[in-house]
Amino acid sequence: MRRFLTPEDLGDLRKALDEARYVKANPFADQDLGRNKTLLLIFFNSSLRTRLSSQRAATNMGMNVIVLDINKDGWKLESEYGVVMDGDKPEHIREAVPVMGQYADIIGVRSFADFVDRDKDYKEHILNQFIELSGRPVISLESATRHPLQAFADLITVEEYKTKPRPKVVMTWAPHPRALPQAVPNSFVEWMKKADVELVMTCPKGYELAPEFMEGLTYEPDQDKALAGADFVYAKNWSSYHEYGQILSKDRSWTVDENKMALTNNAKFMHCLPVRRNMIVSDEVIEGPNSIVIPEAANRVVSMQVVLKRMLQSMK
Amino acid sequence: MRRFLTPEDLGDLRKALDEARYVKANPFADQDLGRNKTLLLIFFNSSLRTRLSSQRAATNMGMNVIVLDINKDGWKLESEYGVVMDGDKPEHIREAVPVMGQYADIIGVRSFADFVDRDKDYKEHILNQFIELSGRPVISLESATRHPLQAFADLITVEEYKTKPRPKVVMTWAPHPRALPQAVPNSFVEWMKKADVELVMTCPKGYELAPEFMEGLTYEPDQDKALAGADFVYAKNWSSYHEYGQILSKDRSWTVDENKMALTNNAKFMHCLPVRRNMIVSDEVIEGPNSIVIPEAANRVVSMQVVLKRMLQSMK
Amino acid sequence: MRRFLTPEDLGDLRKALDEARYVKANPFADQDLGRNKTLLLIFFNSSLRTRLSSQRAATNMGMNVIVLDINKDGWKLESEYGVVMDGDKPEHIREAVPVMGQYADIIGVRSFADFVDRDKDYKEHILNQFIELSGRPVISLESATRHPLQAFADLITVEEYKTKPRPKVVMTWAPHPRALPQAVPNSFVEWMKKADVELVMTCPKGYELAPEFMEGLTYEPDQDKALAGADFVYAKNWSSYHEYGQILSKDRSWTVDENKMALTNNAKFMHCLPVRRNMIVSDEVIEGPNSIVIPEAANRVVSMQVVLKRMLQSMK
Repeated sequence: MRRFLTPEDLGDLRKALDEARYVKANPFADQDLGRNKTLLLIFFNSSLRTRLSSQRAATNMGMNVIVLDINKDGWKLESEYGVVMDGDKPEHIREAVPVMGQYADIIGVRSFADFVDRDKDYKEHILNQFIELSGRPVISLESATRHPLQAFADLITVEEYKTKPRPKVVMTWAPHPRALPQAVPNSFVEWMKKADVELVMTCPKGYELAPEFMEGLTYEPDQDKALAGADFVYAKNWSSYHEYGQILSKDRSWTVDENKMALTNNAKFMHCLPVRRNMIVSDEVIEGPNSIVIPEAANRVVSMQVVLKRMLQSMK
Repeated sequence: MRRFLTPEDLGDLRKALDEARYVKANPFADQDLGRNKTLLLIFFNSSLRTRLSSQRAATNMGMNVIVLDINKDGWKLESEYGVVMDGDKPEHIREAVPVMGQYADIIGVRSFADFVDRDKDYKEHILNQFIELSGRPVISLESATRHPLQAFADLITVEEYKTKPRPKVVMTWAPHPRALPQAVPNSFVEWMKKADVELVMTCPKGYELAPEFMEGLTYEPDQDKALAGADFVYAKNWSSYHEYGQILSKDRSWTVDENKMALTNNAKFMHCLPVRRNMIVSDEVIEGPNSIVIPEAANRVVSMQVVLKRMLQSMK
Repeated sequence: MRRFLTPEDLGDLRKALDEARYVKANPFADQDLGRNKTLLLIFFNSSLRTRLSSQRAATNMGMNVIVLDINKDGWKLESEYGVVMDGDKPEHIREAVPVMGQYADIIGVRSFADFVDRDKDYKEHILNQFIELSGRPVISLESATRHPLQAFADLITVEEYKTKPRPKVVMTWAPHPRALPQAVPNSFVEWMKKADVELVMTCPKGYELAPEFMEGLTYEPDQDKALAGADFVYAKNWSSYHEYGQILSKDRSWTVDENKMALTNNAKFMHCLPVRRNMIVSDEVIEGPNSIVIPEAANRVVSMQVVLKRMLQSMK
């Protein structure tokens, strides 16, 4: 495996879920694969869960880890071709990325959408330069349009907590004070559409995802109707795709509280975290017995470890 | 051991000192205990000695280490209950801490007093949330009111350098340009009161420690009288407890110089570092033959390693 | 080996190149030397290649690594003697450095020239305090006047790519928008003068290096004449030594482009990176088939690993 961005990169999801179960039960079983291999984690944007879970997954696999926080150094990379570099950017991405590839065996990159140019964001401009130029397998640690480690961890979590073969999974938009990327909802629907679940998405008008993610997706604009009979409620905020990066609503009637949860089939509550309490979800729901946000976060180690294991195996 | 904050957490100090001696002589002897275990070090405040010595102690034990500098990211945690989180705090401590617990086996936390609310500081508000919510053993890497790894290292150092069964140990306040926490003097007296030493504390009026730390402590307001016959002089600045966080004096007649040291029984000079030269102590004294500040700092690895070993043993 | 700053520290260069070849072919062969040893990397100035390649080299050797970015913390060290430390510097270098030595087995230090005081820079004021006070072997990770890990990597690269016993190596100054240190060119000529190459240096008048580096060096002020028949072109910008730290020229007729390369004997193009495209070198040349900047960067792991191996061997 040379790239981890979409479910297609992982192939058969059943098999991947079997591997996840194995890795979770035997976290230290494959250290021979990782011995003397280095994972380089590059953060253009800051991170808590992704950084910690990736470091943990890599050391579970016996790997060495190097973390590079590029944003803190104010290290700016030129990415245009033909520029006379007499300004504030000391290095071109066409040198920087191949060099990083010389020092690592696998590279993880976090680089959010910058909301300036939708086309550039949706072409995964930064991530793809790492894929093209680094010479190494590359993992999205949340890139401009996707957060596949989160979506895979979400799928693992649904698999663990489901009580019927084909549960109803509802992803609902919820309000937030800031303009957030679409990476998490994009990946969530991309993965769940391929999984053995009944997927429904609900959001206010104007918050529909990009066409490629809406395709084949059951969309229900009425949140209450969407939640009816749900086995899992996955709450998340995102900003508008169509009015790109804009906040169209902060309507707190979309906040997931006990009244909303009462509409469901005793659903489990999920969120990728960090979560704004009493905006996205009420204190009662997130601390309630049906909240599985902490084991969901714990599965971030598992999803990363499966991806690392696959990549290490393909290097042998 | 689930918590390291006070000498009670360590139990019998004689036994702990025996373990320290063993660990120092055999630093790599217990790597089977630490194998595949991860220590997460969380710094709300910056650190040199604590960070380096903790990393070293953990790798000596065969552990993996993850360092998280929370202050640098400007990552603000909400800690109030029931708040509508529409401001600048993206995450609630009630999610952040349990999540961190999922990625680590032992957690160390540095979080200084903020001098805003004495009661909150003295309740160890931040540290206790980690103890309550993380699900993991928690080590204070200097918290609001205590710095137990330093005090234990100090005790190990006194034990190594003492030339009589029950040495006289004098802790003296000394001037400093900034308002410093009481954590180091609090822990120092808390530990030394339990050790086999004659402990005297001296400071200007108004600098007395909190009642729980003054209890049973020999206090001598005249620095010269206190120093008479001392075997160890432990200098430290702190701000006022009673006029909380205030600087009441910068009187440099309290600086420990050769004249002061001449009053002692050829005492060893100790300080936790970093130290302001010619405020706390003169160049001559800190560079003189009786200064043991460097071996004292080296013992920070030993105190941490004993604590890690205890915690790892209690996990087996 | 207690210090790595000049080629003399490494001794016989033939032997060192043999070791480099061995280490590159067998990167994990000497982990018993590094086991339970800690490399502390201290960055007063930021770093990409040096940090990553040093971490990689150390883990290849089985060592533990601790990285300390001192600049980010704004941690200021007092280095004058006799100062009353009541200002903004919380610690004296005479405590800080010995303490760091207690927690590490080998110390690497990056500290650039500050261009304030040429004599102080050329005395390697910071690096030498680490050498004197730390009690540990010390490696320059680019210090005020030298970048020996780069120069050694450059020599390894020339050795790998040369097609005749004694190639012609031309170091040429090239324009840059900022005032850069002389460390890279100083070390490059210092190492190449001892190697089996025909070395020529070319730069505009006023950019001659310090006398100790010019001594015995073939200097050709006409860039075209210098490049004639070159087997290797090593481009680099530096600021003036004689008008210390000043930019005397940004003349882009010195940029290495295809016309310049046409003057050579089909020369390989080298640069230490990061490089300003179309200032130092044209896009065509740096991306052309004769550019060896990426394998040159890869050899930074090799040069560091040879140095670590030597130091670890001398500790046994």
